[in-house]
Amino acid sequence: VSSGDTHRAVLKPVSFLRQVLAVCVYPELLEDKSLPLDVKIRAQKLLEACDGGSVGSYTASSGLSHVRQSIAEFITKRDGIPSFAENIFICAGSQRIAVKLLASGEGTTRTGVLIPAPCPHTLYPLLDEADVVLVPYQLMEEKGWAVELDKLHQALQANRRNCEPRAIYISNPGNPTGHVQDRKSIEEVIQFAAAERLILLVDEVYQDSVYGKDREFISYKKVLFEMDKEYAETVELVSFHSLSSACVGECGMRAGYMEVVNMDPEVMYYFDNTLCGDISTPVTGQLALDLMVIPPQPGDPSYDTYIQVRKQQKPAVTLFTLATLSHNAKRVQEFLNKLPGVSCQPAMGGIYLFPRLHLPCGIKEQAKVGNVPKIMKPYELCTAFCIVSKKVTLVLLSHRLCILVPSDTLDEVLARLSSFHCRLLGGTVTPRDA
Amino acid sequence: VSSGDTHRAVLKPVSFLRQVLAVCVYPELLEDKSLPLDVKIRAQKLLEACDGGSVGSYTASSGLSHVRQSIAEFITKRDGIPSFAENIFICAGSQRIAVKLLASGEGTTRTGVLIPAPCPHTLYPLLDEADVVLVPYQLMEEKGWAVELDKLHQALQANRRNCEPRAIYISNPGNPTGHVQDRKSIEEVIQFAAAERLILLVDEVYQDSVYGKDREFISYKKVLFEMDKEYAETVELVSFHSLSSACVGECGMRAGYMEVVNMDPEVMYYFDNTLCGDISTPVTGQLALDLMVIPPQPGDPSYDTYIQVRKQQKPAVTLFTLATLSHNAKRVQEFLNKLPGVSCQPAMGGIYLFPRLHLPCGIKEQAKVGNVPKIMKPYELCTAFCIVSKKVTLVLLSHRLCILVPSDTLDEVLARLSSFHCRLLGGTVTPRDA
Repeated sequence: VSSGDTHRAVLKPVSFLRQVLAVCVYPELLEDKSLPLDVKIRAQKLLEACDGGSVGSYTASSGLSHVRQSIAEFITKRDGIPSFAENIFICAGSQRIAVKLLASGEGTTRTGVLIPAPCPHTLYPLLDEADVVLVPYQLMEEKGWAVELDKLHQALQANRRNCEPRAIYISNPGNPTGHVQDRKSIEEVIQFAAAERLILLVDEVYQDSVYGKDREFISYKKVLFEMDKEYAETVELVSFHSLSSACVGECGMRAGYMEVVNMDPEVMYYFDNTLCGDISTPVTGQLALDLMVIPPQPGDPSYDTYIQVRKQQKPAVTLFTLATLSHNAKRVQEFLNKLPGVSCQPAMGGIYLFPRLHLPCGIKEQAKVGNVPKIMKPYELCTAFCIVSKKVTLVLLSHRLCILVPSDTLDEVLARLSSFHCRLLGGTVTPRDA
Repeated sequence: VSSGDTHRAVLKPVSFLRQVLAVCVYPELLEDKSLPLDVKIRAQKLLEACDGGSVGSYTASSGLSHVRQSIAEFITKRDGIPSFAENIFICAGSQRIAVKLLASGEGTTRTGVLIPAPCPHTLYPLLDEADVVLVPYQLMEEKGWAVELDKLHQALQANRRNCEPRAIYISNPGNPTGHVQDRKSIEEVIQFAAAERLILLVDEVYQDSVYGKDREFISYKKVLFEMDKEYAETVELVSFHSLSSACVGECGMRAGYMEVVNMDPEVMYYFDNTLCGDISTPVTGQLALDLMVIPPQPGDPSYDTYIQVRKQQKPAVTLFTLATLSHNAKRVQEFLNKLPGVSCQPAMGGIYLFPRLHLPCGIKEQAKVGNVPKIMKPYELCTAFCIVSKKVTLVLLSHRLCILVPSDTLDEVLARLSSFHCRLLGGTVTPRDA
């Protein structure tokens, strides 16, 4: 339940995407009468974009030019700001590659990267491997995990002597916080990055999963390019998107892309070069990206089915929809806030909630003598909660809770969570909602 | 023509493999009446092996356990020696990962890796990235590029002070040489590795492409495990195989595996761990590996088509067969040996020939004043030849020539090669076979 893996959570994949890929894998299906016409036309077009007309061929390391072009068109349309295929790099693990490129130095000259606290759980091993210094900036829980300028300055001041800060990592919509930044907040971060000469590394993989009231996804690139020239033409920005993200959720296909703007031409050369030295992205994943950014259009035979799945208003059991996500987020947050010793900020986007656990001191002491791991094990199992002690206070911080699940699974998770939580607290309190 | 990319070379993929994958991608095809029964049964089985029954789910980083088990069974059957799933690691770029694990030290304590000269063209960037010291051992051209024990000792002696040699890389069947080692030669290399405490890194990706008279593929693991206990139980071996290799040739699917035996448990821990820190292999690629190692069996509806493609005796235009490969190898080698200033050893396996060019001194001098690159450009374009100067003699060494092409493409390549080569030599000589 915690992995954010759509298909493992028994939610159905987008059938248009799977149909087109099946034809690309086995082109004899072009003769199949049961498949919609637009599926076949699209498959034919994608096959023509592959070397030798086959998904079995190598591609350029930075990706198929047809797909890079599709992505650039998608971004242009999304932002109303031109995007160019040569700035798009298709790759699995693009964040890993981007960070590796930045890493340099030794001792106090090592590259520092500002990262949010809390941050996506994949970020630590990634930065660790790249051998950069982590400079955490605290997000403001009481403001729904918003980014605060003061905390950015504090983090930078406290770490300037340990390393050479060269980049700031942002997760928006926030993983695991569910926070979605507004334009003003994004502008502040951009101004900060400009003043401190930091590269912006922006994880925008949940851009299609914003459901908060009066919130919309605004990309960092759009905000940047609508600011004054001094920012729009200078601030270096890398934005990440992924096939594994919520609405498509093709985690097993291993593909994503990054758009790189305003980058120093010398660094850009290394982007091209390091990618070229690396292995290319699986072709089916690349084609799936094309289908993600250019879905069926009104009038296409597949449009109605596609839009029905995406826009369905009533929470469904087996189909993932934005409405389901919004509904789950609200329901789980309310549930958690009624549990004794638990609090949780409302989410505006993404697929996680990030509750806080205030556990009694007794548990903390048990943890010290090594008893808690045993207690915690079933807790983790039943809820994907994981309790981490914080240095400063007695409050324990819990792990992210994924809400990308069908309603009936969610029922079971909440019931088990509630029952375990009460057992943990000694059975003295009963939950007010189970 | 030089990339070894089957599908780009307009050769058809294995239809059984593509059919099963299409069903896995779009499981509604299980209802399709035109697909063979064994295709559907296999697809069903593979889908059950995926988390959530979908190719869209993440897998364990070391791969799907079902596929690891299939690979272990394939190896057991191939060698008559037990292989175990826990020693199989599925990954794209497995060589990169293995080498990275070995890399350590600085200055004269840096890890040294013995590599053949000539070696696969992908090996240099890979080892370079891992920051290890390259210790080249010369293969014996006049013996068809055989591995010679003397050369291994020489290479080690000459470099022992620069680095700490910890591994020896072998390509068998040889890329780009086409040499296939016999049991005696493999035993010698194993004894050498044992005496010098080197890990064997064996690229065996062309194991299904041996066509030399009286030559067969024998795996290093088979030879090792049939040797005395002092070797069989101690010599550390990593063997690599890939979906991109000749007979399946699914380069675009990005998957391969390594089998690791006799490895120090502490190192084995890092194998597991580094792989876990890394991204998992695309699921369709993993499933394709399963289909590569367990193809249709006699009696299966797809068996006849499959075996017809694999064993077809007459060289075909659009289907790749071992017979085509063997025929091409002989034809190109004879052709090259008739060109003035060119010689080429016969190949026994793999998909490359590695001809030698003896160019007149005039050309060499032009190279010094920078004229040759211009001349070489069309040479590369038309033949995938690339000329590299050698330090010791005036003889220039050419690049590998891929023979994995349909006959008509080969006709054109040879005609253009011949015509360009004669123009380069001043048009004074005409080829004896064009």
